[in-house]
Amino acid sequence: MKIPFTKMHGLGNNYIYIDGFQVNLEESEIPQLARKISDVNFGIGSDGLIYMLPSEKADVRMRIFNKDGSEGKNCGNGLRCIAKWAYELGYVTETEFQIEANSGVVDAKVFPENGVVEQVSVDMGVPRLKRRDIPMVVDDRDPESRVVNEPFPVANTELNVTAVSMGNPHAVFFVDSIVESPVAELGPIIEKDERFVDGINVEFIEVVSEKELHFRVWERGSGITQACGTGACAAVVASVLNGYSNVGEEVTVHLEGGDLFINMTEEQRVIMRGPAEKVADGIFHWPSV
Amino acid sequence: MKIPFTKMHGLGNNYIYIDGFQVNLEESEIPQLARKISDVNFGIGSDGLIYMLPSEKADVRMRIFNKDGSEGKNCGNGLRCIAKWAYELGYVTETEFQIEANSGVVDAKVFPENGVVEQVSVDMGVPRLKRRDIPMVVDDRDPESRVVNEPFPVANTELNVTAVSMGNPHAVFFVDSIVESPVAELGPIIEKDERFVDGINVEFIEVVSEKELHFRVWERGSGITQACGTGACAAVVASVLNGYSNVGEEVTVHLEGGDLFINMTEEQRVIMRGPAEKVADGIFHWPSV
Repeated sequence: MKIPFTKMHGLGNNYIYIDGFQVNLEESEIPQLARKISDVNFGIGSDGLIYMLPSEKADVRMRIFNKDGSEGKNCGNGLRCIAKWAYELGYVTETEFQIEANSGVVDAKVFPENGVVEQVSVDMGVPRLKRRDIPMVVDDRDPESRVVNEPFPVANTELNVTAVSMGNPHAVFFVDSIVESPVAELGPIIEKDERFVDGINVEFIEVVSEKELHFRVWERGSGITQACGTGACAAVVASVLNGYSNVGEEVTVHLEGGDLFINMTEEQRVIMRGPAEKVADGIFHWPSV
Repeated sequence: MKIPFTKMHGLGNNYIYIDGFQVNLEESEIPQLARKISDVNFGIGSDGLIYMLPSEKADVRMRIFNKDGSEGKNCGNGLRCIAKWAYELGYVTETEFQIEANSGVVDAKVFPENGVVEQVSVDMGVPRLKRRDIPMVVDDRDPESRVVNEPFPVANTELNVTAVSMGNPHAVFFVDSIVESPVAELGPIIEKDERFVDGINVEFIEVVSEKELHFRVWERGSGITQACGTGACAAVVASVLNGYSNVGEEVTVHLEGGDLFINMTEEQRVIMRGPAEKVADGIFHWPSV
């Protein structure tokens, strides 16, 4: 079988994209294909497979499959790439449209120049801030209360945590110096801390100004990564909650893989803007020839 | 710049191949391209870049660039893939031909079926067996002597080493059980043992029969890998030197990435046969679009 593919990444978060408007994959074969195609040794190499499809609820549908073949719910970096691709291929003709992900329908906006889209913004939704919604262990506290700059002793260190759910849970810690932030040391410990019911993504943030943050992440289940879209959103939400940044103003977040631009609007929605890059188009031979 | 590429692998040792009969790369840009294209996050993802070119000394020329952009001398898995590719593209028309690598000219033979080459054999040359040629520290020993089943105490363990150079140095250790072989524990220690002048690749071998070996490798500078072509050759040479295998008989070597078939001929040449697989053809966008 010859399967046309495109490889794209957002800040290094890279997927093999297959155009379901043209290619019909057998449902039962997709997990196996995702494992094979994302294996750098015996396939192409990627964080997984994203399958773009027609949608009944939106303009285009995104299905995301992880390296292990399991189906994921959403991916901010993948949404930007899908938006770029759907526009450039002509499946959508307006610059503002909707993408159906397994987590729900998302508003997207592309910024084309001569038909090429370098930047995309996506509406990452309304953050959930109540303690029980993170979810965190409630103990004797108010389950409706927010977790903002709350003392969080861990491994003989006195930290203060701000907790934000962007559909997935984030613990944000503000530090004086991003270079000296204890991502590798405390990330794995905090990820599995029993105060977080479902585990947690861990972000360390250095505030440069109200419009500029440095960012390092320990992703739940993955460890240190170069970019985490929902993490950058959580960081800006936390920065607003702590009074470091302002509602309605775009904040530049410097991740290891590049920059994202996050705006928490007056309506409490989080808009993420950032790059989407196409690196290759080709044919995958399955099985190999 | 749109750069046509093919991704192929031999036992999982994978490279991006560029056809220099069609594509002219600027010499000064190749290292940068090799780094970019082999980066799974921001490029395609591979162990490096192989550039196929016309040759004045042979039928086709192979230049290999590592992930870090440095130019390598040779790669057995890459030679098999280049042979397959050159034949399938019609740049060579005979099934036996010569490939120029930076380490010298190599004889290759393809076994096509309906125009598709699944197996390739390459002449990996004459092993060098003298102590000073491995190279090993000579001390008060005869520098012309061979290192066969020689006591080799290391890290409180009594091992016996057989040393073989296939252009690069190998230390082969026979063990009773490949599953229990101490690759991860002793590999890194032996690699840097001061008895080896240039460091060493470390192989653990379980003899199943005179025609069948199990194989695990710690590659110098890389650690545990799924396949090492020169290592499999050194393993069979060592097996012959120790009387476990016979000259002139093909031996099946089971590596983690798959099987190789190695024959040490009456003329002391080592012929390696194994698979070469094409997984993708495409266009690399450089820079990304």
